[in-house]
Amino acid sequence: MRTPLERIRAALKRRKIDALLVTQPENRRYLSGYTATDHAINESAGVLLIPSEAEPYLLTDSRFFLQAERDAPGFLVKLYPRGLFPLLRILLRRHRIKRLAFESHYFLHSTAQTLAALAEKLKVELLPLTGLVEELRLCKDAEELAKIERAVRLNEEVFAEVYRSLRPGQTEREVALRIETVMRLMGASRPSFETIVASGPNAALPHAVPGERTLREGETIVIDMGLVLDDYCSDMTRTVVLGAPDEKTVALFRLVRKAQLAGLQSLRAGVTGQDVDRIARGVIERAGLGERFGHGLGHGVGLNVHEGPSLNYRNRKPLAAGMVVTVEPGVYIPGWGGIRLENMAVVEGQGCRVLNRDTTFLDL
Amino acid sequence: MRTPLERIRAALKRRKIDALLVTQPENRRYLSGYTATDHAINESAGVLLIPSEAEPYLLTDSRFFLQAERDAPGFLVKLYPRGLFPLLRILLRRHRIKRLAFESHYFLHSTAQTLAALAEKLKVELLPLTGLVEELRLCKDAEELAKIERAVRLNEEVFAEVYRSLRPGQTEREVALRIETVMRLMGASRPSFETIVASGPNAALPHAVPGERTLREGETIVIDMGLVLDDYCSDMTRTVVLGAPDEKTVALFRLVRKAQLAGLQSLRAGVTGQDVDRIARGVIERAGLGERFGHGLGHGVGLNVHEGPSLNYRNRKPLAAGMVVTVEPGVYIPGWGGIRLENMAVVEGQGCRVLNRDTTFLDL
Repeated sequence: MRTPLERIRAALKRRKIDALLVTQPENRRYLSGYTATDHAINESAGVLLIPSEAEPYLLTDSRFFLQAERDAPGFLVKLYPRGLFPLLRILLRRHRIKRLAFESHYFLHSTAQTLAALAEKLKVELLPLTGLVEELRLCKDAEELAKIERAVRLNEEVFAEVYRSLRPGQTEREVALRIETVMRLMGASRPSFETIVASGPNAALPHAVPGERTLREGETIVIDMGLVLDDYCSDMTRTVVLGAPDEKTVALFRLVRKAQLAGLQSLRAGVTGQDVDRIARGVIERAGLGERFGHGLGHGVGLNVHEGPSLNYRNRKPLAAGMVVTVEPGVYIPGWGGIRLENMAVVEGQGCRVLNRDTTFLDL
Repeated sequence: MRTPLERIRAALKRRKIDALLVTQPENRRYLSGYTATDHAINESAGVLLIPSEAEPYLLTDSRFFLQAERDAPGFLVKLYPRGLFPLLRILLRRHRIKRLAFESHYFLHSTAQTLAALAEKLKVELLPLTGLVEELRLCKDAEELAKIERAVRLNEEVFAEVYRSLRPGQTEREVALRIETVMRLMGASRPSFETIVASGPNAALPHAVPGERTLREGETIVIDMGLVLDDYCSDMTRTVVLGAPDEKTVALFRLVRKAQLAGLQSLRAGVTGQDVDRIARGVIERAGLGERFGHGLGHGVGLNVHEGPSLNYRNRKPLAAGMVVTVEPGVYIPGWGGIRLENMAVVEGQGCRVLNRDTTFLDL
């Protein structure tokens, strides 16, 4: 089994690329092991320079030196006290790089202009690439799957802990804060996205921001939460009701759960993201609620909480074993509320393995 | 007093630009009032299209429609169900845009390629710009200053609350989590950056990540924290010691405080960021510790926690009244620890006004 670094080098050689500049933070982590996070796209914690034929470099500044040396033993750590480009100039010359690829989808236009000026001086041909490393990241190996599974498990434990303390009168914001606090107390690095707690009519907005609205009995409460553990993400949605749900709620809940199960039952290597989306969506469409399910069925999860492959009408590529996706159908009724159920599963040859273990909240 | 939108339009007309595309999230908020945050640079909550001669647009997707309408009453909210570019094509034609500027410093290279293809079809000239809106944001008006002051005040209250509960044996991570939890319980939207709690030798790293190290008596503990309140940021560093500090600690603390006061005393409209940095740095250099102060003296704060103007050797532009900056000298001794003290101040005609009120922890 070749390492990601060996595979990326082979891909570079096939394309006759002399070196690749890696700026996307999760790609950087994937290839090097370097775990620092960027404050923002223009405040990078470092860049990889991977020559196809020489030892790879991790370029960073003095703040990150110790962490870089510790995390990325296979990389030569070089510091750029006066910014990236003077150092890059030296390294491109040293290795006689003539064709340099960069990650077009994670490279600012203004920075690309500076890079283009340098490349012109050094007579280097620039090749904007997208998705080369992301492609490798699609299928997870056993170690990655184990990490993702631990992140899913911890997310469930956090949910169970917070669920026990849910009471009418608490605000959405309070509950979201408690979720994010408990996460970190239980060992997560951080939430993998801003936690959603949406109650009553707010639950009709798939991306509601938790606010001052208080939880009431009988309404649906959509809780969409995820965490990062050991650099890998989890993502899960539960819809709960305090007190007794009415008939409409129960009927819609069962419909969404049925759609989710249909999606999971169709998920296996060889089918497309489009297929799985269509099968789950069909359940909701046949109930006459197709227009109330306005988003895709799911997305990949790994080092990023949103990555490939997509489960939606646009993805016509066959899925492969080792891909990890969410399956998250929903129904959203303006003015009333919404229901979304989201589990994560790993694609296998003959089917899929659901990574969530706790089904307590799916038995409404 | 013209609004930011009026000023940006005047700037566009002066440069004969027909429209500006605003992608940088804080610029978008500044011009429109729209408060949504982006999950990532490739998961935008929306874009402004500001024609120089027609009503401005806020382009977003259905998830954000209600928030956009509520936050940005002066903007026409348009949805892009199939992505930004099909909608942009319609609007560029409708307004006969021939010269379109975009924010080169917050625009992905790959997205710029798509934009360039569209522009070519429509015979639109593209103008990559950097810093046009940021330039307007440098000097804060009275309302902005009031918001920043409230963010600073709340940050101090959070610090005071957490300080009372600091005990030897707590981990850095625990304390950082408590700070971020208390912030949000006391009303902040979120931390403005990842809270730093660095103790003992870790305090020698200016950007230490809080870890499992436990606080011990007699060591320096650097706490660098900030929050967002009403969209505006605060940023503050305190260095504290549990138990009695030794002589070396007291001497270094006084040195750093002296450097900070020298910086603040030199801060006024007309001096450059370079001047202020040099004056504060001189205090530490004369004590023979110049090499132990490896970062710039300060940075601007506003909608972004790191924005212009910089107080460092590179900034040769005169400061102006209404700019808000941090003044944060430090001394870092490898193996021993570090001391950093950071306050925020607003530049005025004859001096500056320090925004921090609590000096309790500066009297060591």
